This record gives sequence, structure tokens and C-alpha cells, in this order.
Amino acid sequence: MNNPFFKNNGPFNVSDILQSINLDNTKIAKDKKITDIKDLFMSEKNDITFFHSKKYNDIAKNTKASFCITTENLKDELPKSCTALVVKNVLVSTSIVTSKFYPSSINDNFDSTVKDLNETEFTDKVKFGKNVLIGDNVTFGSNCLIGHNTIIEQNVSIGNNCSIGSNVIIRNSLIHNNVTVLDNCVIGKHGFGFFPINKKNLRYPHIGIVIIGENSEIGCGCTIDRGSMSNTVIGKNTFLDNQIHIAHNVKIGENTIIAAQVGIAGSSILGNNVRIGGQAGISGHLTIGNNVEIAGGSGVIKDISDNSKVMGYPAKNIRDFLKDNKWYTKQQ
Amino acid sequence: MNNPFFKNNGPFNVSDILQSINLDNTKIAKDKKITDIKDLFMSEKNDITFFHSKKYNDIAKNTKASFCITTENLKDELPKSCTALVVKNVLVSTSIVTSKFYPSSINDNFDSTVKDLNETEFTDKVKFGKNVLIGDNVTFGSNCLIGHNTIIEQNVSIGNNCSIGSNVIIRNSLIHNNVTVLDNCVIGKHGFGFFPINKKNLRYPHIGIVIIGENSEIGCGCTIDRGSMSNTVIGKNTFLDNQIHIAHNVKIGENTIIAAQVGIAGSSILGNNVRIGGQAGISGHLTIGNNVEIAGGSGVIKDISDNSKVMGYPAKNIRDFLKDNKWYTKQQ
Amino acid sequence: MNNPFFKNNGPFNVSDILQSINLDNTKIAKDKKITDIKDLFMSEKNDITFFHSKKYNDIAKNTKASFCITTENLKDELPKSCTALVVKNVLVSTSIVTSKFYPSSINDNFDSTVKDLNETEFTDKVKFGKNVLIGDNVTFGSNCLIGHNTIIEQNVSIGNNCSIGSNVIIRNSLIHNNVTVLDNCVIGKHGFGFFPINKKNLRYPHIGIVIIGENSEIGCGCTIDRGSMSNTVIGKNTFLDNQIHIAHNVKIGENTIIAAQVGIAGSSILGNNVRIGGQAGISGHLTIGNNVEIAGGSGVIKDISDNSKVMGYPAKNIRDFLKDNKWYTKQQ
Repeated sequence: MNNPFFKNNGPFNVSDILQSINLDNTKIAKDKKITDIKDLFMSEKNDITFFHSKKYNDIAKNTKASFCITTENLKDELPKSCTALVVKNVLVSTSIVTSKFYPSSINDNFDSTVKDLNETEFTDKVKFGKNVLIGDNVTFGSNCLIGHNTIIEQNVSIGNNCSIGSNVIIRNSLIHNNVTVLDNCVIGKHGFGFFPINKKNLRYPHIGIVIIGENSEIGCGCTIDRGSMSNTVIGKNTFLDNQIHIAHNVKIGENTIIAAQVGIAGSSILGNNVRIGGQAGISGHLTIGNNVEIAGGSGVIKDISDNSKVMGYPAKNIRDFLKDNKWYTKQQ
Repeated sequence: MNNPFFKNNGPFNVSDILQSINLDNTKIAKDKKITDIKDLFMSEKNDITFFHSKKYNDIAKNTKASFCITTENLKDELPKSCTALVVKNVLVSTSIVTSKFYPSSINDNFDSTVKDLNETEFTDKVKFGKNVLIGDNVTFGSNCLIGHNTIIEQNVSIGNNCSIGSNVIIRNSLIHNNVTVLDNCVIGKHGFGFFPINKKNLRYPHIGIVIIGENSEIGCGCTIDRGSMSNTVIGKNTFLDNQIHIAHNVKIGENTIIAAQVGIAGSSILGNNVRIGGQAGISGHLTIGNNVEIAGGSGVIKDISDNSKVMGYPAKNIRDFLKDNKWYTKQQ
Repeated sequence: MNNPFFKNNGPFNVSDILQSINLDNTKIAKDKKITDIKDLFMSEKNDITFFHSKKYNDIAKNTKASFCITTENLKDELPKSCTALVVKNVLVSTSIVTSKFYPSSINDNFDSTVKDLNETEFTDKVKFGKNVLIGDNVTFGSNCLIGHNTIIEQNVSIGNNCSIGSNVIIRNSLIHNNVTVLDNCVIGKHGFGFFPINKKNLRYPHIGIVIIGENSEIGCGCTIDRGSMSNTVIGKNTFLDNQIHIAHNVKIGENTIIAAQVGIAGSSILGNNVRIGGQAGISGHLTIGNNVEIAGGSGVIKDISDNSKVMGYPAKNIRDFLKDNKWYTKQQ
């Protein structure tokens, strides 16, 4: 888990962590320190991790984490080097612990660290419009353009030869060389992730970032949310049209073309050379292969294998769709 | 009809009202004063109201209004205390009279009353970004945050602990405590309501407001239009994702979750604990019950009863939808 | 082709043009001058044009252009007065030549010519909000309103009595009298047009503009892209709701009403008096007749003839749609 941007408030004593999730009566040694929270695969010694579904059994068996938030049923899969912290709801407890390490990743209040670009070191480095605001921990490569009223909030790194439009808001993002971001985009906001609780939902932390590969273009009015425990990624030379929504944790491959008003729900993964027509929607947690073509207006609710062409809602093989709608060619 | 914000230009003499709708040759006593225009239910003595469909017969029989714009066919339903003003097109005449009482509710030109927040009384009360503009008749509770370039136009009341993002525009709205509004939203604009007339459509007034209940969250780039003769309401603890459109007069209940790019057309009413997947659409003037689940991409064109799960276009019971698409599970 | 705005960098010697598309070894006389690039129909003597599909045979036969980029198969359709320049890919070569004549039409970087409106000649002419920016070559009629933070970039002409909202960005557009543009729109950006090439797509020029007819209204958060070789046109008294996307080269007729979140793909042509429900989508290069009604949520993938009412995806006659969904009325 690449996390260059959010400040880790740890390490914490085990006792503090246990108390935060109401486990302070266990026999676990409480004087150790916990360094960070990561997923099962990325964790190292002295980290805490989480394990909530048997589909991760294989990764769990080999985790290097010293502690793991998990359930009674799953705890025996963990190696001896990893102490199980058994809770009722793994994701809620993980959210609480993550919030402790990364408190600034929960709410996206406006960035009060910003300064007018004219008051920063960047006046000679970038070409910029009127009323441009720059937050802490921002870097630019050479030869960048930043449009009017644009706000580059905290924790943004922009490469060489990038052109950012006007009225754009970017935070917690890593933008590679030769990227174009058109007007009115919002990039790097936390995703739509929370635990629904009557009267007051509980937001969970989003410690991932947005990564945009080189030579890509993002159209006007797009929203690209940052990831929760992983990153949201747009591959190289991928072009997005206007008014597209990319939810948290989505990964899009290279050389992909997405037409206007498409929406991709959280954690879906798209291959390279994908083409998506306007207004199509892709449900969450799906895998879309390489060279897939999705017709405009389609609703994709299942994985799509490499080289497929799909259409309809639910989206199916385009030949089947057209056969089912044979009347269409005849009657219209 | 709760109307704390629009200035009532009345009272008007009956003769002025009659003249405005070309009824000045009637025998109606013209020296009385009319105080306000309201719907059949909310009207009081000396108010004028309107009655255009027999489905409101029961309410019409008991209206307290002194005058009512209506048709030849409907006029006999009114009580004796209420003088019928018979016209050809009730809604057009009502629009004309409403415009007379509330001329500022027709066009949404930019608010020229705004001042830089630094020049207002709020400098110590709220924490605010750069270039924040505040119109007349705006109030804030304690502990609010207002992002950069945000414009709080006339007639807005914001509660305690609210976090408003950057590039947001709000007018004619009542926002309760602990509400989050993310970047680039436009809240409180007039709805898409007008009488289509060749060469020059006639806009009708929107004297309703937008009300957002406590603990709710509005995602980036949402548009929530204010009501025409009633309010647009978002219930408590209701979360909206990015790029959602809520049309005028819509009422959404509590604890509701709406994913990105959903659109809800005018005057539809949603219950509590509703879940709506991304890109779903709901037609106008529908009633959606409590605890309803609407799958992403669905098109809802009929009322949905409590506790239903629907999918498809037109949206139907989700089991029927999946049965009809059985091939889907097999072939894909 | 009406092109009032983009600066023509020509004329160029034939030899320069040939070299740019790697044809410098041909026997064509290279000392002539080429004035401009236009389509087959609009071209005049000393212009260069392009011809890539036999469906334009009839127009090609009568073109007045002196040069034409075309293929081996098509070249014999051209009149003797027109010298064929035979290439492998007509559109790529046309793009290269167009870029030579109109280099500023390829990238939409922020407009560095803008000034605060307070520093322009318009301070007495228009009523304007805070932080309004105006680019070169902008004109206003009488009695216009321009909202806060709005950017009127280069090459915009606005008529009388127009009301432009806040946070709006307009460039390369011709807006007629009595037009309303609501908050957060982006109008006149280049379209989503490019040649897909692995590792680095090639954008083609957009030398068209956006034209908005009188008495029209554009809702909040709409994006209307300018045309490539022709204009994007919104007819008179046409009303667009919020969050609509109109792609490049689209032509919409008069008295048309389009509900929220509709998307119209590139080069489609709509007649007069068309009604489109919310979230409907129209594919590219289609012709939609006069008086057509398209139900909300529909996906239109074929031409629609005058006076038709369609619904569904793919959109078909609304009676057929409702018959196919008879169960709907019964079961729900």
C-alpha cells in the first residue's frame, strides 16, 4: 500500500489500540508498539492488519503483521507470529484503528493550508491563472499550466508538461507527466464509503490516493475519488470525456477510452485498451478484461473477460443483445 | 407551505390580481385585499389559492382561502367562503399571480448583494477559505467551515458544525446541524419548471426552498433544485454520492443512501432507509416507500411499495428481473 | 463553415502542406498558395478540403477546392479543378493540415489573456459579480449579467439581455439574445475527438464554435463542447436542465426541452419541438426528427423519424415498449 501523503500518527501502544476497539480485557501483552496499519499482504512486523473474509485465507497464512483484527472463525488461519484481535465487526474495528493512525483521512474539510500561488515558491516554475491556491506538500514538474480559480490542496504531486484547467480541485493525488485535467474536475476527495448507522453514519478513513498515468486526459466536471485502503488508478494514455465518475479504489488500465457520463463503482478493475460508450455504468468489485468494448448506456453487473464486446442492461455479448432485439432492425 | 425566505410583495387589491389574469370584467368585489398565495391546504383567510385537478377535491372543500383560481368544472367543490376565479389554464394564471407576490422567485440571476466574508460579521464566527462570498439574509450556527470560492447567496440558514466545501453555490436553503456539502455543488437554484410556449417559454415562480436534515452529506457536483410551491427536502442522516441531481419538490426521507449519478425527477417522494444504486433514475410525481432498494442503473417509472427490491428499466421486482435474465447467469 | 474565432495561420505554400503529410515527392506544383481548409461544400478556390467516404460523392463532384486530401479509390470523383492528394488515412492527414492552419484549436489550456472585468471597457456595460475574468476578443450586447468567478475566455460574443451565472466558463461561443446560462457550466471546450494511438493519442483540431439561439436556457453543470469541422448548435427557445452533456458537432433545433443528465453524443442532429426525459442518451451521428418524444432513461441508437414517441434501450416505439412490458402493469 503506497501511502506517500497521509501523516501516520503512530506508533501506538498495543493498549491504546485495544482500548479503542473495546478489547482491553484480553490477555494480550499491552506494552508493545504498533507502527502502522496495512492490508494482509503489505503488512510488516509490528504492523496491525485486518482479515474479514475466508477468500483471503491464503494471504492471511503468510502475513507478516504482528497483530490482526479478525473473527473467531478466521483467527486460526493466521500464522503464530500474528496475534489475533477477535472482534464482532472486523471492518468497523479496522475503521476505528485506521482513524487513530490517520485522523486527517476521514473528513474532507476545505484545506486551510492553501496560499495564493503568488505567495509561493512556484511563481517562476509554473504558468498560472488568477486566484490559484496551493496547499502544503505540493510539488510541480517543469512546464506546467494551472488555470484560474484552481485549488491544488495538500498532498499533490504533479509531473512535467501537465495542463490543469480552471475551477479544478485536486488533493491527495499523484499526477504523472503530460496529463491534461480539464475544467471543474474534483480529484482526490474521499470515496462514498461509510458504515450505515441510523441517525449518524460512520465514515471510514480513506488513506489511498489518486494516481493518473502519463499522457492521460480527464474531461470537464469529472470526479475521481481517492481509495480507502488502496489507491484509485488511471493508467497511461487513458482518456476520459466529461462528467465521468470514478469511485474509490477503481483501477483503470492503459490506452482506455471512456465516453461522457460513465460511472464506475468502487473497487472495480479494468484492463488495458478498454472502450466504454457514454452513460455506461459498471458495478463495484468487478473485473473487466483487456480490449473489452462496452456499448454506451450498458449496465455491467458481472465480470467481463478479455476481448469481449458487451451491450445492454445487464450487459451481455453484443451479438446476443442484437439478436434479442432483432425486432429493432425490422420494425423501427 | 413554509416560506421563510422570499419577500412577499403583497398585499394586493383584488382588482390588481384580477387584472393580471384578465378577469377584470367579473362581478367580484374588487376592493378587498389579498395577503398571500398558498396551496389549498395551507391557505388562510384573505389568501388566494389554486385548484386544478379533481384529485384535490377533498382538500378544496375545506380550504380557508378567500379566493381560488380554478376551472368551470371544479368551482362548485369550493366552500362558500371561497370566491372562485374561473380561468382557462389554472397553472398559468397561478404562475402569473405567484409572480406578482414573489417577483424575485422567477429568475436566478447572480446575487449582487454578496460581500466578501472578510467584510461581514461572520469573520469570527466561521472558519473560512479564500474568496468566500456571503449574500443578504444569511445565518450560521457555531463551528462551521466554508471552503474557497464558495458563494452563500441570499436567504440561507446554516446550522452548527456544518462543513461546506469549495466552489459551492447555495441559495434559498435551510441546512440543519452537522451537514457536509462537498465541492462544486449548486443547491437552491430554481427547478426546471416552465410552461412551454413556442418562441419564448414562460418560467413559473419557485417560492419553495431546499431543506437538508442534520447529519446528512451531499457529494461533489450535486445539484439540488428548490421547490416551486412546496420545498425540496433531504431527510436526516441521508448520504448522497457525487453528481446526483435532485429536482424541485422532491422529498427524500431519513437514513437514505444514494450512489453517484442518480437523478430524481420533480415532486417524487421517497421514504426512509431507501438505498439507490448508481445511475438509477426515478421519474417525477412517484412515491417510493420505506426500506426500498433500487439497483444501480434502474429506471423507476411507477410507485414502489415499502420493503421492495427493484431492478431494471422499467424497474420491477429484483427476483423477476433476474429470472427474466436467467440466460445471463448461464451464458456469460 | 462559419469560423469567426480561430485565427487562420495561412496561407501556406503547397510544398509546406505536402511536407507536413509526407507527400513531398509528388509531381504536384509546389509554388501555389493554399488559403484555408474547409469541408467539401464550403471550400472555395485555393482552399484545401478532404474527402474520406463515398457517401459524399455528390458533394465531392462539385467542390470548388483547389486541393483535396483523399484516397486512391475516391480521387476520381473529384473535378479537374481539384488536385487530389492521395494519403493512407484521410482523417489523420486532415487533422495534421488543420492543425497547421489553426494551431490554437487543438489544446484547451487555460486562457492567459484574461483580465479582471474591472480592468476592461465593460465595467459600465454589464452588471457583474466578483472576480469575473474576460479574455481577448469578447463582446457583450446591452443589459447582460455575469455572475461571480465566471470566466469568459477568448472568442466569445454574447447578445443582449443575457444572464450568465456564477462559476461558469465559456470560450469560442456565440450566444444570442435573452439566453440564460446557469451556474457551473463549461461551454465551448474542444470535443472528445482524437485518433487513438497506443502510448499517446493524437488530438484533432476543433475549429468549430458553440452557438446558442435566443431565449434558450442552459441548466447548472452542463457541458457543451464546440465542434470539430462544424459548429455545435442549440436552437432558439430550447431549455436544458442540469448536468447535461452535449458533444461536439451536435445540432439541436428550436423549442426543444431536455431534462437533467441527458447525454447527446457527437454529430447527432435533433429537430424542433423535441422532448427528452431525464438520463436519456443519444448515440453519435444520428438524426432525430421534429416533434419527437424520448422517454427518460431511453438509449437511442437509431435515427428517429418525425412525430415519433420512443422509450427503452434500445429505444423503440413507446406502444411496443409498453406492450413488451405488459407484465409491468399487471404484476407490480
